[in-house]
Amino acid sequence: MTGPIVVINPNSNEAVTEGLDATLAPFRFNGGPKVECVTLRDGPFGIQSQLDSDSVILPLVNLVLSRKDAGAFVIACYSDPGLDACRSVINRPVFGIQESGVLTAMARADMFGIVAISEDSVVRHRRFMARMNVLERLAGEMALNITVDESARGADTYVRLVDVGKKLKKRGAGSIILGCAGMARHRGQLEEELSLPVIDPTQAAVAMAIGTLLTG
Amino acid sequence: MTGPIVVINPNSNEAVTEGLDATLAPFRFNGGPKVECVTLRDGPFGIQSQLDSDSVILPLVNLVLSRKDAGAFVIACYSDPGLDACRSVINRPVFGIQESGVLTAMARADMFGIVAISEDSVVRHRRFMARMNVLERLAGEMALNITVDESARGADTYVRLVDVGKKLKKRGAGSIILGCAGMARHRGQLEEELSLPVIDPTQAAVAMAIGTLLTG
Amino acid sequence: MTGPIVVINPNSNEAVTEGLDATLAPFRFNGGPKVECVTLRDGPFGIQSQLDSDSVILPLVNLVLSRKDAGAFVIACYSDPGLDACRSVINRPVFGIQESGVLTAMARADMFGIVAISEDSVVRHRRFMARMNVLERLAGEMALNITVDESARGADTYVRLVDVGKKLKKRGAGSIILGCAGMARHRGQLEEELSLPVIDPTQAAVAMAIGTLLTG
Amino acid sequence: MTGPIVVINPNSNEAVTEGLDATLAPFRFNGGPKVECVTLRDGPFGIQSQLDSDSVILPLVNLVLSRKDAGAFVIACYSDPGLDACRSVINRPVFGIQESGVLTAMARADMFGIVAISEDSVVRHRRFMARMNVLERLAGEMALNITVDESARGADTYVRLVDVGKKLKKRGAGSIILGCAGMARHRGQLEEELSLPVIDPTQAAVAMAIGTLLTG
Amino acid sequence: MTGPIVVINPNSNEAVTEGLDATLAPFRFNGGPKVECVTLRDGPFGIQSQLDSDSVILPLVNLVLSRKDAGAFVIACYSDPGLDACRSVINRPVFGIQESGVLTAMARADMFGIVAISEDSVVRHRRFMARMNVLERLAGEMALNITVDESARGADTYVRLVDVGKKLKKRGAGSIILGCAGMARHRGQLEEELSLPVIDPTQAAVAMAIGTLLTG
Amino acid sequence: MTGPIVVINPNSNEAVTEGLDATLAPFRFNGGPKVECVTLRDGPFGIQSQLDSDSVILPLVNLVLSRKDAGAFVIACYSDPGLDACRSVINRPVFGIQESGVLTAMARADMFGIVAISEDSVVRHRRFMARMNVLERLAGEMALNITVDESARGADTYVRLVDVGKKLKKRGAGSIILGCAGMARHRGQLEEELSLPVIDPTQAAVAMAIGTLLTG
Repeated sequence: MTGPIVVINPNSNEAVTEGLDATLAPFRFNGGPKVECVTLRDGPFGIQSQLDSDSVILPLVNLVLSRKDAGAFVIACYSDPGLDACRSVINRPVFGIQESGVLTAMARADMFGIVAISEDSVVRHRRFMARMNVLERLAGEMALNITVDESARGADTYVRLVDVGKKLKKRGAGSIILGCAGMARHRGQLEEELSLPVIDPTQAAVAMAIGTLLTG
Repeated sequence: MTGPIVVINPNSNEAVTEGLDATLAPFRFNGGPKVECVTLRDGPFGIQSQLDSDSVILPLVNLVLSRKDAGAFVIACYSDPGLDACRSVINRPVFGIQESGVLTAMARADMFGIVAISEDSVVRHRRFMARMNVLERLAGEMALNITVDESARGADTYVRLVDVGKKLKKRGAGSIILGCAGMARHRGQLEEELSLPVIDPTQAAVAMAIGTLLTG
Repeated sequence: MTGPIVVINPNSNEAVTEGLDATLAPFRFNGGPKVECVTLRDGPFGIQSQLDSDSVILPLVNLVLSRKDAGAFVIACYSDPGLDACRSVINRPVFGIQESGVLTAMARADMFGIVAISEDSVVRHRRFMARMNVLERLAGEMALNITVDESARGADTYVRLVDVGKKLKKRGAGSIILGCAGMARHRGQLEEELSLPVIDPTQAAVAMAIGTLLTG
Repeated sequence: MTGPIVVINPNSNEAVTEGLDATLAPFRFNGGPKVECVTLRDGPFGIQSQLDSDSVILPLVNLVLSRKDAGAFVIACYSDPGLDACRSVINRPVFGIQESGVLTAMARADMFGIVAISEDSVVRHRRFMARMNVLERLAGEMALNITVDESARGADTYVRLVDVGKKLKKRGAGSIILGCAGMARHRGQLEEELSLPVIDPTQAAVAMAIGTLLTG
Repeated sequence: MTGPIVVINPNSNEAVTEGLDATLAPFRFNGGPKVECVTLRDGPFGIQSQLDSDSVILPLVNLVLSRKDAGAFVIACYSDPGLDACRSVINRPVFGIQESGVLTAMARADMFGIVAISEDSVVRHRRFMARMNVLERLAGEMALNITVDESARGADTYVRLVDVGKKLKKRGAGSIILGCAGMARHRGQLEEELSLPVIDPTQAAVAMAIGTLLTG
Repeated sequence: MTGPIVVINPNSNEAVTEGLDATLAPFRFNGGPKVECVTLRDGPFGIQSQLDSDSVILPLVNLVLSRKDAGAFVIACYSDPGLDACRSVINRPVFGIQESGVLTAMARADMFGIVAISEDSVVRHRRFMARMNVLERLAGEMALNITVDESARGADTYVRLVDVGKKLKKRGAGSIILGCAGMARHRGQLEEELSLPVIDPTQAAVAMAIGTLLTG
């Protein structure tokens, strides 16, 4: 029997971890791998800057090394902090949610769009997509310009999502990625309203992890 | 409750469909979507040429249109025949196994390699990857130079797989795709021997389909 | 003596074939290859969707196989349906008009623009250009948003062409492709008005075919 | 009535011009544009270095400006010297043989190969293809390592062509370009022996020029 | 002791050379290489067209060949005329200011923007950047639409620079290149106002030349 | 007066810092910026793994924040650890030696090659160059397969450098980068023996830093 999929929230905000946990409920089933969400206690309360992102690499590595029981890991922050470092210290699969989200969006359409929380993260995401060599398939990335906290709670987040999603569709996006770990509860409704596949990146990563473990 | 994932073997060789069915057994679980493998009766006995590949597009479209109960489709031929056509006639997700396999391999390593059945298919695969704009991440594609039939039955297929896999690893491949629908039973052993993630493309596509349906 | 260039209109609209025939009159000369325009009787009345495009592949292959006398073939639909399939069954040259049109436009300027009939075709064209790896040289593709039928007859087509052509020029296009098989009669006038080379893709393909046969 | 296609040999070697003239004989027909080959008297005896290539730009511009009767120009040196400069001073079409040859080869296969005269020219050609953004479709360029003079006369040139052509085919080339203005007489035989389209770049450029003028 | 860095103004406007000389004053120090600015007497009064640019290649080669004492050369025109030709005739380093400016801007940010003097030069610059394969990192190039002469003297040049610079920043530019040899005196102030690194390309080239000679 | 260029050796091996100090002696001159080499005391003794590289990010940020007097920073490890993080916390220029080395090599030739210390680092370097989007200009990267320590002291390092350098030249490299912070003392001799520009990346970064500060 394979070990659990350990989904790591690299910030120390337990509410975010609980949100991930709820988001991933559909992925728990009899006979399937356990899906466990954990909080990186040493992480900052939110990951918004490059420094926030880099500050969690070593704590992530330590957490990953300590979970010898895990079957696979998902780093549940859209900046994919510590992805290379974690992969370099263990043999088990490690998925980043940006990477998985982008690749899953590419499995659904020729061009994809991204809804980001803030302008600041757009540059960081672009850098990662440059490394992935997928920019030619990016229709655009647009920011909601709200805080991570608002994105999880704010009442008008959905209205903004629809607005930005429609603009990305007009630019040619055939699928949309929610560029943050905390917007999954809007996914289904947005997908219906836009008539486009909408990808929650954490769900995308966990689906890939399950696929790996089921065949392990 | 969502409908089944209909995995279509676009050739008329029932043995191949049965092989797919066995390969996908781990993806069937209580509470998850049904995974059903069907044979395209109008397909050729094997898909080895461009013409074989193009000849199944309309039959695939008809099959897809007829399965109003399906939650998602997987076209289980590594040439991804009819992918655009099927997507254009229904709103439900359609996954191609080449596309899903390549993207899943990209979720595991910076560069990936492909083991093809024959030299002839290498050009066709390259064309599709050019369209996907992923060639910069391809370490190489090398052929076993055996028939599809041999690939499913031949005793020394595994020996050839190890040989080609090692060559691809030397060229920089950090993950390996089995570039055909019928080699999944070698996946686990090969993965262990190469110390690299080995992707069966049908399993990769079904994992993505499950991810989509679980959150639907 | 080489056989004729068989220009295939893959839709069953004879008026389109007659239009092609008139368009290609300048390419008929003493001592040169015959240029013959034929209608694909099994084709749909117009090719506007992905399914229309894929539905003509096998009929095209059959037609190509039946014309053992032909020196070369031109598939005169801007989606280039069946190009790979036709090439795979005969040794003689087969030209697609999108491919030839794009390459000819690239022989005239660093960046090219495309005038499409409708928004729907833009995505399909982009996919083909991605495979050609020429998107970096595309200044833009803009739609007239008229039907194929209107494009052949509509009085204000030319006005729309000038408008879209000027916008493409402003975006950096140094040459313009008429992204449809039926707009050639506007070519000369548009070229003069825009002060840019304007390429009719069927003429571009036939010129390449002639070049091949003259040196055969 | 349109003016002649003026094919300029930018070196002062009249034998090369005569060779071009013979090569282009098939492109002369009743009712078609005149095809006239001229020697750039101010050019060096052969163009083998970057300096040779740059030294002919201004003389080419002068020649082009002086031929107010011409319908189109072809610069018949595979380095395409003076292409931008000539285009910038007149409105009539100017074709470079490298550019036309590469684009014509791309109209025949997914990947193309080039046979160069010498190693030295390979770097110069690559630079131009980088600018064209076509390197991803280049299977390879290999040198015969003979002089331009030998390429026109040497007895074993053909043997070398076959050898290099076969190597390029093995690397994936689906079409082959003769990367020099003086090897056309081997084209047909080589094409048959390799079972691949072989492109003479001057013929490719003249075919494009004819296409332009016939529809002018 | 190494020879001087010879900075060549390829136009014959002595005022431009004097401007360069002032711009480069900070690069002269005890123990460092001499930095000498020279005028190409055979050059046109300004380099604004492709022909202007090509017309200076041979004079540049002659100048370079004549300066056997030089340690390195800088061609101080943003079109980088004669760069390949000059490099091909001597072993000592030759820097182009466009090339050096672009590469230096890439050392400061993921994406860079360019302020051009006129629209006309934008196409020429793009061509060179295509050859460099750096277009994916270009946020945009926008023209001030003033003459070279105005750029050196015009009172409102700075106002235009700020306006264009802000637009480029909005498009994602993390660094800005002054796309002409004569705007260095605005560099510092503009950098402060935009809060972005602003690169004078001649200074960038001379810094690279100094780096090369100091370690020679 | 501008502050010093602080060159940070991110490993704790003082001998490496001393080596850098000697390497940079030529960059110290009257009136120029001070060039100061410092050791990151919290760093590992050598940086050879991804984890080593990531482990120094926060210490580097702290060091950078503490040096309010510095005019510019150079991170002297070829993996460019902490480059984004350091840039995000201060406004002053921060140069990475891999980035600067690659860009400086691109200022000298169409294609460049890299000599790495070990195979392991090749993948890490490729990832960074993918992000830079410069892989199309990479002729190859080959490893000496010696330790960092040996590279600084080993007697036969030079012999290996020549061997690898010649192989890279044969693959088309027009300039060579020493892909490690400790091989500068071989630079001049290797450059002469290969007849190619050889770039020490730390020197390249310091030259860029000087260029920035001289014009500040």
